[in-house]
Amino acid sequence: MMTKERVCIIGSGNWGSAIAKIVGRNVRGSERFDEQINMWVFEELVNGRKLTDIINTEHENVRYLPGIKIPENVCAVPDLMEAVRDATVLVFVVPHQFVKGICERLRGNIHPNAKAISLIKGIDVEGNGLSLISDIIAHSLSLDVSVLMGANIANEVAADKFCETTVGCRIRENGELFRELFHTPYFRVNVVEDVAGVELCGALKNVVAIGAGVVDGLNYGDNTKAAIIRLGLMEMKKFARTFYQGVKEETFFESCGVADVITTCSGGRNRRVAEAHVRTGKSFEELEKEMLNGQKLQGTTTAKEIHEVLAKKDMCGEFPLFTTIYQICYEGLPSSRIVEDL
Amino acid sequence: MMTKERVCIIGSGNWGSAIAKIVGRNVRGSERFDEQINMWVFEELVNGRKLTDIINTEHENVRYLPGIKIPENVCAVPDLMEAVRDATVLVFVVPHQFVKGICERLRGNIHPNAKAISLIKGIDVEGNGLSLISDIIAHSLSLDVSVLMGANIANEVAADKFCETTVGCRIRENGELFRELFHTPYFRVNVVEDVAGVELCGALKNVVAIGAGVVDGLNYGDNTKAAIIRLGLMEMKKFARTFYQGVKEETFFESCGVADVITTCSGGRNRRVAEAHVRTGKSFEELEKEMLNGQKLQGTTTAKEIHEVLAKKDMCGEFPLFTTIYQICYEGLPSSRIVEDL
Repeated sequence: MMTKERVCIIGSGNWGSAIAKIVGRNVRGSERFDEQINMWVFEELVNGRKLTDIINTEHENVRYLPGIKIPENVCAVPDLMEAVRDATVLVFVVPHQFVKGICERLRGNIHPNAKAISLIKGIDVEGNGLSLISDIIAHSLSLDVSVLMGANIANEVAADKFCETTVGCRIRENGELFRELFHTPYFRVNVVEDVAGVELCGALKNVVAIGAGVVDGLNYGDNTKAAIIRLGLMEMKKFARTFYQGVKEETFFESCGVADVITTCSGGRNRRVAEAHVRTGKSFEELEKEMLNGQKLQGTTTAKEIHEVLAKKDMCGEFPLFTTIYQICYEGLPSSRIVEDL
Repeated sequence: MMTKERVCIIGSGNWGSAIAKIVGRNVRGSERFDEQINMWVFEELVNGRKLTDIINTEHENVRYLPGIKIPENVCAVPDLMEAVRDATVLVFVVPHQFVKGICERLRGNIHPNAKAISLIKGIDVEGNGLSLISDIIAHSLSLDVSVLMGANIANEVAADKFCETTVGCRIRENGELFRELFHTPYFRVNVVEDVAGVELCGALKNVVAIGAGVVDGLNYGDNTKAAIIRLGLMEMKKFARTFYQGVKEETFFESCGVADVITTCSGGRNRRVAEAHVRTGKSFEELEKEMLNGQKLQGTTTAKEIHEVLAKKDMCGEFPLFTTIYQICYEGLPSSRIVEDL
């Protein structure tokens, strides 16, 4: 008999908890996955009680996903090493600034057959240029890393509202494993063999959302907004294909591409703060503090990171929308230039 | 010296009048186009005055595009034959049920060098299957017909709000001619050599908008709506590529594809009526009368037409979204099946 895969979810925020609900249900009665799921929870106190205790007794993450029951076979574990012990499937769903630290702690402590999937949105830019979060995990832990991205607002997923998502994999077999782990009738998984394309969609869409918020603030209407979304999607595609080999055109038609850009440009904090920037004239920094209650604005950070990469390669002119958004965020360019400079 | 092209706009509704504003400005000082533009206007009385007289004196189509000045070099002409006399460029922008009758009247009466462009949204289904409006015009008048479609809500275009549009052509040279005729800094024209792909986008998006309205009525949220838009775009692509040779994948990334679907699924009467259908339980027919003030609901009609085509080919199963939308519109299928049947 084949040994069952043991799953550990690393992270327990809003999205991690929504995913724990799906995974916890999906492994029940599974022949492939062990029913017991560990979820690593960064311990904190909520009204004097440990969050892990609350999750393990009330089966609810009252801090980050209140009102939603997490299946009882999901066990909150405050110790990272204990959480990943014997795990052959690692699901990374932590804020992207923590991933390197976590990987350092995990190095040498994971199962030899482990494979991972990253649900983390963002990119990493350091000295040598651009890195994917999935590559950081893969190199740090020497394992295969897939990614999962899509039009997946966590609260709607947790409420079982129908949506789709995209798994990007390098090894087809691992992609299929993750499809089995995540797919439900209300959370439809498509698998594509294109990690970089899928992952860059998840990071770059937030830059496009800044653009969408700017045109909303300018009251430019539905035509202009659709044009910004389309042009943004085209620059996302061009960026991904410029910097990574093997990125597929079709990936941008998947949920991680067109659908997630649409969702992020409809609601979402990046769009909302950008709209407020135009309407109030306040800086993004100021609005981030006022409006986001300690959360970070990913779109502006990513705009800056990709601008650095593009500037180094002298390619800003080929990405007029990304460049204009960067300049609106960081160089005081008037908002109306969003369409004038295209 | 080359003879200048003479342009006649056939039609003067909301969209025709917005286009007349663009074309009228663009030909000024042009070396390629005659400055005098004829616009055929179906004569009617507005407060006792002829609409053509109002347009030619006030330079405003007070009936269909109030508040917008139409350039003075656009001349409203009530007689169709007089309007097209000597015209080498015909811009068709009439409701699609009138196109056959107009072509019959024009046959034998147009300039031997004439080429045309159709801005008409819709398809034609008769005995032998599917016809494009552009093909109907081309066959009837024996000329080359391009098409122009995009995320172009007429009132926003008329207000010079930035947007993009797509010209689909068979003959590159004619596509470039139309780019020159229509392109402005605020109305950006991309040319693709794919008439069928562009034109089918313009027709089929209205079916997708019915689906978007249904999920809005069900309060399913942004994830679900983005999923419906994406799945709709994929079925549009599949439909176009199944029934027409040479339809290009990239066309669906153009303004006529992804951008127009987004716009149509945000506002638009098809979306609005479908939402009301779910919320009130009233039939589409009843709501069309109540809500549209005599305008027709294109999405339901197109859903029926393509269903006939698909049913004949026994292909309904391959188009689950289109089929479910048809059944919700015409067979009383409960709205919630929009996601359950996918």
